[in-house]
Amino acid sequence: MSDITDTQNSWLSEDDIDTMRGKMPIVYVNAIPVRTDDLGVVSHLGLLLRLDATGEVNREVVSGRVLYGERVRDALLRHLEKDLGPLALPRIPPSPQPFTVVEYFPNPDITGFYDPRQHAVSLAYVVPVEGDCEPSQDALDLVWLRPDEVVSPTVAAELSPGHEKLVRRALAHVGRLP
Amino acid sequence: MSDITDTQNSWLSEDDIDTMRGKMPIVYVNAIPVRTDDLGVVSHLGLLLRLDATGEVNREVVSGRVLYGERVRDALLRHLEKDLGPLALPRIPPSPQPFTVVEYFPNPDITGFYDPRQHAVSLAYVVPVEGDCEPSQDALDLVWLRPDEVVSPTVAAELSPGHEKLVRRALAHVGRLP
Amino acid sequence: MSDITDTQNSWLSEDDIDTMRGKMPIVYVNAIPVRTDDLGVVSHLGLLLRLDATGEVNREVVSGRVLYGERVRDALLRHLEKDLGPLALPRIPPSPQPFTVVEYFPNPDITGFYDPRQHAVSLAYVVPVEGDCEPSQDALDLVWLRPDEVVSPTVAAELSPGHEKLVRRALAHVGRLP
Amino acid sequence: MSDITDTQNSWLSEDDIDTMRGKMPIVYVNAIPVRTDDLGVVSHLGLLLRLDATGEVNREVVSGRVLYGERVRDALLRHLEKDLGPLALPRIPPSPQPFTVVEYFPNPDITGFYDPRQHAVSLAYVVPVEGDCEPSQDALDLVWLRPDEVVSPTVAAELSPGHEKLVRRALAHVGRLP
Repeated sequence: MSDITDTQNSWLSEDDIDTMRGKMPIVYVNAIPVRTDDLGVVSHLGLLLRLDATGEVNREVVSGRVLYGERVRDALLRHLEKDLGPLALPRIPPSPQPFTVVEYFPNPDITGFYDPRQHAVSLAYVVPVEGDCEPSQDALDLVWLRPDEVVSPTVAAELSPGHEKLVRRALAHVGRLP
Repeated sequence: MSDITDTQNSWLSEDDIDTMRGKMPIVYVNAIPVRTDDLGVVSHLGLLLRLDATGEVNREVVSGRVLYGERVRDALLRHLEKDLGPLALPRIPPSPQPFTVVEYFPNPDITGFYDPRQHAVSLAYVVPVEGDCEPSQDALDLVWLRPDEVVSPTVAAELSPGHEKLVRRALAHVGRLP
Repeated sequence: MSDITDTQNSWLSEDDIDTMRGKMPIVYVNAIPVRTDDLGVVSHLGLLLRLDATGEVNREVVSGRVLYGERVRDALLRHLEKDLGPLALPRIPPSPQPFTVVEYFPNPDITGFYDPRQHAVSLAYVVPVEGDCEPSQDALDLVWLRPDEVVSPTVAAELSPGHEKLVRRALAHVGRLP
Repeated sequence: MSDITDTQNSWLSEDDIDTMRGKMPIVYVNAIPVRTDDLGVVSHLGLLLRLDATGEVNREVVSGRVLYGERVRDALLRHLEKDLGPLALPRIPPSPQPFTVVEYFPNPDITGFYDPRQHAVSLAYVVPVEGDCEPSQDALDLVWLRPDEVVSPTVAAELSPGHEKLVRRALAHVGRLP
């Protein structure tokens, strides 16, 4: 599937994207990977570890653009497989209703969600993941943390401010915000 | 788990329940079993076949009472296992938020959902089911139907009026109401 | 409307209720009163001030039982009018879908929501309130607090542990958890 | 507010938009205007009447693009005021969570929602409207219909296929799908 969508996108140059980023809101998805027990209770939340441009360690949830011609659920699966590997077995929710919508702006004052590159509208979903995860691409690692660990000051400080708020909204939605 | 909850309930006689049914709203759950593809798109909805008191064939979704001391998700799993068998592997959703709440009354005019025995408040969830289902208890069979089959006049006529409305709300919620 | 529901309930004695509280889950509603601007952004959340049995000041959201024969939205309006007065003009949401379901147990370990008297299943709704509020009944006062004030340690300490978690879930749902 | 957003958009030429429409998903909002009673029960749904390019009468809900720099709720208010007039008093919901997401494609087979011009991702909200509505812009009229009228064959035939499905999802969400 990623082959197809990559192909669809291949004729859209980086220049084109940059131009559009200054003119239109860009559609994104956020996936919050979780482990659950048999009753659906969330026991752990998955955070990716990356190095940012300055060499700092950053924790993030799965995030990415929806391509032209791609459904939201195609984009969710593509980004989950890209970040968690092909054996992660994500359970994309049956409903298209996101648990929240996050709006990132180059102006940090509008919503408190800041993206210097663009205005992005991101549909966020909690996605149970049942398989084996092996972070691929540019992620250093994937760690599974309990809800109380996710909101601890140490972890919160390593999340980008936007993702920190987003994971707390996700924990609230699944009834696990400490 | 069903042992525990049955025990919890064993000292509550049928007489007690009947008395309460005339005095208090009773908490119920409804589970809509669905099959999905890898992208989470609902392909089929599971309906139980039962004979009612008059010998008529009835189609229903999974439904039952929440017992004293039992969480909503415990009740969902208990009723799903009771109706679909122990190998059904239901994926109880991580969020406690139901997609709708259905209120049944002995007076059919209040909400259009009618139950001559009681006032029931039912929390309804769409539950992807991945394993092998074998209807147990008093169900004759479990059939998996496509969304267009579920809303066909033939099938709709065999659903109780309440369950007919409920499955259409569920299909709308997952974006599959034809 | 309160007349009708009070009448419906009048033949249910306190003894009856106490008996049932030990045998069945009881249906509750929680309403989180909010003030919004013209765009629907929540600016303030309303908390009731009460004295508890020991003379301590407690902050709470609107909360109460659903009576036999009463719809969830009837119960919401009845409890909102009882606590905020007849001129509060609450805007009961059009959808029956609660933003969360909270389960209170006499055993504090099951969900973290504790009620020594009963097992309660509470459907929670965010309710914009546009009119003039005058706390009636046993409430001392109603205060409107900004989201950052609601989660401040001082206010959080005066909320019951259950309501403290509930208001943070509500703030997360409306995108205003600081 | 519309002045500001119009200005923000003014430097984006029609040519630019057309170019982007072939390269990126475009963010839209859909607002389903409803009348409710004091309990929040939806009594009527508002449909706009327009003439399409061929002179046919079409019924539609409120729909439009989210502009660069504009929040989803700004876009909802702007399009509601544009279509229903400045005195409509729409009650934009406090939560950013849409009740559904609709994806329109130039290929009608992907989701069943078809838009020959573009790939649009539309966030849909039910919006209670309390004031006086006077259809402006290019709408001929605004009619308020009961749920049973909305789903009648006559009305359904005048809705675009996409909007016909969308209004039934909205009715299901508010518990009023007949």
